[in-house]
Amino acid sequence: MSGDILSPSGEPTVAPLSLSPGEALARMRAAAPLVHNITNYVVMTPTANALLAAGAAPAMLHAPEEAPEFAAIASALVVNIGTLSAPWLAAMISSVRAAVAAGRPWVLDPVAGGATAFRREAVSALLAERPAVVRGNASEILAAAAGGVAGRGVDAAHGVADAAGHADALARRLGAVVVISGPVDIVTDGTRRVELSNGVEMLTRVTGTGCTATALIGAFLGAGIAPLEAAVGAMTLIAVAGEIAADVGPGEPPRGPGSFAVHLHDALWSITPEVLDARARIAVVSATG
Amino acid sequence: MSGDILSPSGEPTVAPLSLSPGEALARMRAAAPLVHNITNYVVMTPTANALLAAGAAPAMLHAPEEAPEFAAIASALVVNIGTLSAPWLAAMISSVRAAVAAGRPWVLDPVAGGATAFRREAVSALLAERPAVVRGNASEILAAAAGGVAGRGVDAAHGVADAAGHADALARRLGAVVVISGPVDIVTDGTRRVELSNGVEMLTRVTGTGCTATALIGAFLGAGIAPLEAAVGAMTLIAVAGEIAADVGPGEPPRGPGSFAVHLHDALWSITPEVLDARARIAVVSATG
Amino acid sequence: MSGDILSPSGEPTVAPLSLSPGEALARMRAAAPLVHNITNYVVMTPTANALLAAGAAPAMLHAPEEAPEFAAIASALVVNIGTLSAPWLAAMISSVRAAVAAGRPWVLDPVAGGATAFRREAVSALLAERPAVVRGNASEILAAAAGGVAGRGVDAAHGVADAAGHADALARRLGAVVVISGPVDIVTDGTRRVELSNGVEMLTRVTGTGCTATALIGAFLGAGIAPLEAAVGAMTLIAVAGEIAADVGPGEPPRGPGSFAVHLHDALWSITPEVLDARARIAVVSATG
Repeated sequence: MSGDILSPSGEPTVAPLSLSPGEALARMRAAAPLVHNITNYVVMTPTANALLAAGAAPAMLHAPEEAPEFAAIASALVVNIGTLSAPWLAAMISSVRAAVAAGRPWVLDPVAGGATAFRREAVSALLAERPAVVRGNASEILAAAAGGVAGRGVDAAHGVADAAGHADALARRLGAVVVISGPVDIVTDGTRRVELSNGVEMLTRVTGTGCTATALIGAFLGAGIAPLEAAVGAMTLIAVAGEIAADVGPGEPPRGPGSFAVHLHDALWSITPEVLDARARIAVVSATG
Repeated sequence: MSGDILSPSGEPTVAPLSLSPGEALARMRAAAPLVHNITNYVVMTPTANALLAAGAAPAMLHAPEEAPEFAAIASALVVNIGTLSAPWLAAMISSVRAAVAAGRPWVLDPVAGGATAFRREAVSALLAERPAVVRGNASEILAAAAGGVAGRGVDAAHGVADAAGHADALARRLGAVVVISGPVDIVTDGTRRVELSNGVEMLTRVTGTGCTATALIGAFLGAGIAPLEAAVGAMTLIAVAGEIAADVGPGEPPRGPGSFAVHLHDALWSITPEVLDARARIAVVSATG
Repeated sequence: MSGDILSPSGEPTVAPLSLSPGEALARMRAAAPLVHNITNYVVMTPTANALLAAGAAPAMLHAPEEAPEFAAIASALVVNIGTLSAPWLAAMISSVRAAVAAGRPWVLDPVAGGATAFRREAVSALLAERPAVVRGNASEILAAAAGGVAGRGVDAAHGVADAAGHADALARRLGAVVVISGPVDIVTDGTRRVELSNGVEMLTRVTGTGCTATALIGAFLGAGIAPLEAAVGAMTLIAVAGEIAADVGPGEPPRGPGSFAVHLHDALWSITPEVLDARARIAVVSATG
C-alpha cells in the first residue's frame, strides 16, 4: 500500500489510516489475542483454523453459564448468527454485554440477517449492544440498515454500490465501523469510506470465508487496533491471502475450491506484513449517505 | 452414459431415465438452487463446501422459530439425523411440513436409523412426512423398511443385495425414491431400479460423503428435476467425482483420505456434464421386492 | 522403538510397556472399533476424519434419549467438553455411567477446564465417573489436579515440567492414566511415567489435534488395549503422523497449516506399525509426585 493511498491526493480532508494492513497484521501477531467466538456450526472448524493460521488464539464456547464470564477473559468477542437459535441468542446478548462492560470490543456477523423474522429481530437486538464492527454482504448490511429487508439468505442479492450509502449511515447511527464484503469491499466509519479491491471470486465458493473475515476482524480488534484499521487490515488480509491461494503457475489449471481452501490457510500463515502491504489495493474517500 | 443404457435392450418394458446425470448436473448448475439443510454437526462444513463446489447455494439453519419459514423460501430441504436431538427433531418435522405445504421437495438421510430406539422412532415419524427421496446405506434402509432393525450405527453391516428388494417395497409404500449407497448404489422408485457402478472405496474413509450425496440430491431436486433422475444424477456425480479424486499418475502412491477429500471438492467443481455422462456406469432394470 | 526403551536400562524396577505403539496400532486397526464421541462442535469433522483415517469407526451423538444406550453399543466413549453446555454435560454424565456399567472404557478431554467456574465444576463431576484416561495440556491437567486453577482457555500457559508431578498424583487418585500434551508428552499411571519426544510445532497451529489425540486414545481403548499402552500408542501415532506430515523435500518451503492438516490425515492412514515403532522416541521412568 503506497503512502499516497494512506493520504490520498485530491481528498485532503480525508484522514489517512493510522496503520497499514501490514502494520496491523504485525501488531496482531505480536499480541496473539485470545478471540472468543460464538459462531455458527458450519464455520467453527475453518474459523478456528484461520485464526490459528493467522496468529491468533481461538476459543469457541457459548453456554450461558460461562460465555459472559469468558467474554471478559478474552481480548475480543466475535458473534455470528449463522445457525442461530433462541438459547444461543440469549448467550450472545449476555456475552456482548459482558464484553462491553469489560471494555472488550466485539464484532457482529449478521448472517442471512434479512431472511426471516427471527433473524431480523435478532439483528436489531444485537445492533443495540454497541458492536465495534459489523460485517456482512450487501444484502445483510442493507437488512441491518433498514431494520429488516427480506433477503434470500446468505447470498449477496443486492449490489455493493446500492448498499454503501446505507452502510455509511448505519455506521454513523451505531457509532461503529460497517463492512460490506463484495467484489470491492467497503469499510466505513460513517466519515471515511475505505474501498478494498483485493480478492478473488473463488472466495465465494468456499463456505465460511466471510465468517472468517469477521473472525479476523475480531483478532485485529483484540490486539488493540482501532476498528477502522482493524477492519481494513483483516479484510485486506483474507483478500490477499485468497489471491495468493488462487495463484498457480503458468499453464496450470485453476485451483478448485478444495485445494483453494487449503492454500488459503497456508497463505494466512505464510504471508508477511511486507507482502500484504505491497499487494493491498486501498482507497480512502469521504463517506456519503 | 450410452444411449442403450438409458433405454436398456433386453428390458423393453423399463422406461429410460428422462435425464442423464450430465443433463441433470447442467440443469442444477443453471438453477443454482438454494438448499436448506437441517443436518448433523459433523458434516455441516463439508456438506456446505460440496454444495458450493457443485454449483448450489447452501443454507444451514434449524431454529423452530424460523426453519419452517425458511423451508418455503429455499428450493429444497435436506434433513439428516446424524446428531439428532429432540429439539432438532421437532424443527425437522415442522420444516418438512412447511416444505411440503409450499410444494418444495425434501430428502431424508436416516443416519444410523436403526441404532437406538430414539432413532427408530424419529425415522418412522419423518418417513410419514412424504419425503421425495430417502438415502442411506443398506443397514439404514433396511431399518427404515422394517420400521426398525438394530444396527451398529453408521456402518453398512448389511449388504446392498439383501436390501434392494426391501428398498423397492419401501419406495412403493412411501411413494418416494429410495437410495442405497454401497459398492453398487441402488436407486429405486419401486418400479424402476437403477444400479450405479461408479465410485471408489476411499469415499468410505472420509466423513460425510454419504451425507454429501444426500445434500446433492437435494440440490438436484431443488432445480426441479424429478426424484429418480435427481437421485441418479447426484449419486453418479459424487461417485465419479470420487473416481477423479482418487486418480493419480502412473507410479504415484494412492491418495490418502486427507488429500482425497480435497480433490473430491475440486472434482465436484471442475467436472463437466460431458465427462460425467462419459464415465457414468448405469443400468436400469425392473424393480422387484 | 528399541527394546532397551521398552525395558530401560538403569531403571530395572520400571516395568516395560506390554505393547509397542506399532503393536497397539496393528491391534486397533484389526479391531476397527466403533468409537462413540460426545465432543465439541469445532473438532467433530476433523476428529471423525482422523478416526476413519487411522482405521476406527466414529459415531457422534449426544441426545440424552440415546447417548447412554449407544455408549454400551460402542467399544469406547470419548468425552470432550470444548463447547460444553448444561444439556450436553448431563448427557455426558449419563453416557459415561452407561459406558462404565457396560464395561466400556471412556476417555476425558477437559478442554479449557480451568477457564471458568462452569468448566471447573464440569471437570470435577466427570473425573468422579472413573475415566480410563484423561488427556489435556499442562494447564488443563493442572486445573484437573487442583480441582480448578484459573487458566487462559485452551492454551498451555503452564509448562509440562510443572505439571508432570501433579499428573502422577492425579493418576493415582483417579486410578486412571493421565496424559499431558506438550513439546514432550507425558503419559502416567501414577507408577510409570512415559515420556514421548515425537511431534512438531505445527500440530499446535491446526485446531483439534489435541482433541484428535484424545479420540485416538478412545480408539485404542476400544480395541481392548490397556490404558497406558493405549495412550502411549495413540499419542505416538499422532505425533509421528505430524512429523511425516511436516516432512518436505530438500529445498522446499515448510508446509503451512492448511496443507499440514491434509497430510496429517494422509499419514494417519498410510503409516505402518513398523514405521511407527521405528520413529517412536519413548522413555519409561518411575513416576514421582
